[in-house]
Amino acid sequence: MPPLPFTYHIEATDGAARAGTFHTPHGPIMMPVFAPVGTQATVKAVTPRDLKDVGASLILANTYHLYLRPGDDIIREMGGLHDFMGWGGPILTDSGGFQVWSLSSINEIDDDGVTFQSHLDGSRHRLTPERSIEIQQNLGADIIMCFDECAPPLDYDYNVKALERTHQWAGRCQAAWSADGRQALFGIVQGGTFDDLRRQSAQALVSMDFPGYAIGGLSVGESKEDMCRTLEVVTPLLPAGKPRYLMGVGAIADMIEGVRRGIDMFDCVLPTRLARHGAALTWKGQLNLHNAVHARDGRPLDAECDCYTCRHFSRAYLRHMAKSKEILGSILLSLHNLHMLIRLADEMRAAITEQRFDDYAARRLAQLKTSK
Amino acid sequence: MPPLPFTYHIEATDGAARAGTFHTPHGPIMMPVFAPVGTQATVKAVTPRDLKDVGASLILANTYHLYLRPGDDIIREMGGLHDFMGWGGPILTDSGGFQVWSLSSINEIDDDGVTFQSHLDGSRHRLTPERSIEIQQNLGADIIMCFDECAPPLDYDYNVKALERTHQWAGRCQAAWSADGRQALFGIVQGGTFDDLRRQSAQALVSMDFPGYAIGGLSVGESKEDMCRTLEVVTPLLPAGKPRYLMGVGAIADMIEGVRRGIDMFDCVLPTRLARHGAALTWKGQLNLHNAVHARDGRPLDAECDCYTCRHFSRAYLRHMAKSKEILGSILLSLHNLHMLIRLADEMRAAITEQRFDDYAARRLAQLKTSK
Repeated sequence: MPPLPFTYHIEATDGAARAGTFHTPHGPIMMPVFAPVGTQATVKAVTPRDLKDVGASLILANTYHLYLRPGDDIIREMGGLHDFMGWGGPILTDSGGFQVWSLSSINEIDDDGVTFQSHLDGSRHRLTPERSIEIQQNLGADIIMCFDECAPPLDYDYNVKALERTHQWAGRCQAAWSADGRQALFGIVQGGTFDDLRRQSAQALVSMDFPGYAIGGLSVGESKEDMCRTLEVVTPLLPAGKPRYLMGVGAIADMIEGVRRGIDMFDCVLPTRLARHGAALTWKGQLNLHNAVHARDGRPLDAECDCYTCRHFSRAYLRHMAKSKEILGSILLSLHNLHMLIRLADEMRAAITEQRFDDYAARRLAQLKTSK
Repeated sequence: MPPLPFTYHIEATDGAARAGTFHTPHGPIMMPVFAPVGTQATVKAVTPRDLKDVGASLILANTYHLYLRPGDDIIREMGGLHDFMGWGGPILTDSGGFQVWSLSSINEIDDDGVTFQSHLDGSRHRLTPERSIEIQQNLGADIIMCFDECAPPLDYDYNVKALERTHQWAGRCQAAWSADGRQALFGIVQGGTFDDLRRQSAQALVSMDFPGYAIGGLSVGESKEDMCRTLEVVTPLLPAGKPRYLMGVGAIADMIEGVRRGIDMFDCVLPTRLARHGAALTWKGQLNLHNAVHARDGRPLDAECDCYTCRHFSRAYLRHMAKSKEILGSILLSLHNLHMLIRLADEMRAAITEQRFDDYAARRLAQLKTSK
């Protein structure tokens, strides 16, 4: 009998780090996992078959963008996001909240919801917790997120008020959600960099009993110390048997520090965005392919990497692609950068299973440091 | 024993149409063939493995562009064009002549060669027949082309003079070329739309005995009638046992009319350029994905097509990609458009082998016409 959807099996732990499997209607997600971001129903410059080839299991899509264009009604009509974008694996959609706060012009926030203007054409729209869930049901992702208010991380008073609203909205999202085994709704712990608020938020959401928990509002400019301390405050309060998702984080060192503190899931636009700017992630730090030093360099981007790009193309070629502004440069660097972070997650999983996570983490962090 | 490089075996003819195999050091080319264009050492938006997947055998690269950037010396140092761009199949480079005339600012033309300014940075360069061959040897393509003068197709007096120079330069290219079995040098028949000049050009080049012949200076704005008549004048003068390449042609109807008149090889930037502008080739004509009529259309681009794009993505999704200016739109439409023309060549080959070329041509041309 197949495992029940949205059950999380932890297979090994090493300190606070966990290796597990989260079951979804579109297949299992082996954790820790890095999820590539497909904002507009495409991971930029990567076909679904290449995404599979780099080892992706879970991918993200953005509710705000897809609601505005092409519209969640069209995507529902086309059979939902999986069919629409040709991705048969698990998908997660965010709530639209973060983009409303970061991309649109906000006209009005009240306890009911948010009225905002589209960043595309200035048209007026309203999102509420209920509407966010409805849109996410139309999109049909496996994992959907609670609609929350994103507060500036350093403003205590603002965070207190935003947190209260976020918790009320989480309750309304849960009430609007159909717990029919088709979609799992995750709660989002907020509270900026304030330990008491983070504790309060974790406890409030845990008492609502969601199938999984995200930590939001990090990687928005706070210090590494603040990020790590916040994780140390929050993760012990979350139930061990549910997945934990650190939203918007995807730097190599941050993923290592996250897993060390009990995080299972990551997502970030960085690997594909860097690629489009001609930069490659390597175990020894970033390479800027525009740099003339690569012009006659026949070596692959990273000596340890076995991705399609590293197996077939030299730094000299990738520099030529970047200098010539060729789309293939974005494609090949995206494949490589995604492969790096997916492999990092896989390597952490293996290290946890074999009880050698600290050694692994130390080695990878030392490699990054020596290159600076 | 493997066939000698650059021998052409004709397997079937049907009227003037031919099905054959041209052997190169990087594998056989089954004719008729459509060659995708990889101007800057990349077929735009397509990885080499996807290029193989759409059925490409021969691809083109442009000497002018690669000489200017990254430089033919770098490509030679990186093991030649095949290694540099990760394409193990046959490659053809043009001579650079056409781009000097169409892209650069020309400072001086004399009997020895051309001095021009780069379209990239205005730097001054000189190409001669000998230098073009040297660059093409550095690039290392399987098929290389004679450096010629491209004349305006309707100016008789200019064409008379340009033709004399083109024939002299063809002789100098042949003298500079090493007939070592590594690269085949093709001559280019010029002469605009003037039958007497075309005849004169074909006879002059055939007497030099090249391993293959191209017909240049067509598809530059002349009428379809002029193009077809010119082919009817030229192809009967070319040796039956050598491949015939109609340069720069890649519309469905033009390829059919070319094969009907004994052409074996085609190349064109159109399928990938159209893709980047959101247009798809179909057997019933072009689709513009920006058109609102596609917004809720769940059908594939073409009902008969079995390419990756048509197997997995709807017109609605491809329209969303085009409207959102997503790179994946260019990728998926490029794959489809290339697959269409490669399949057209394959279908013509099968029809010739089975002695039903005229029926096949009539059916495809009728499909295109009914859609207008």
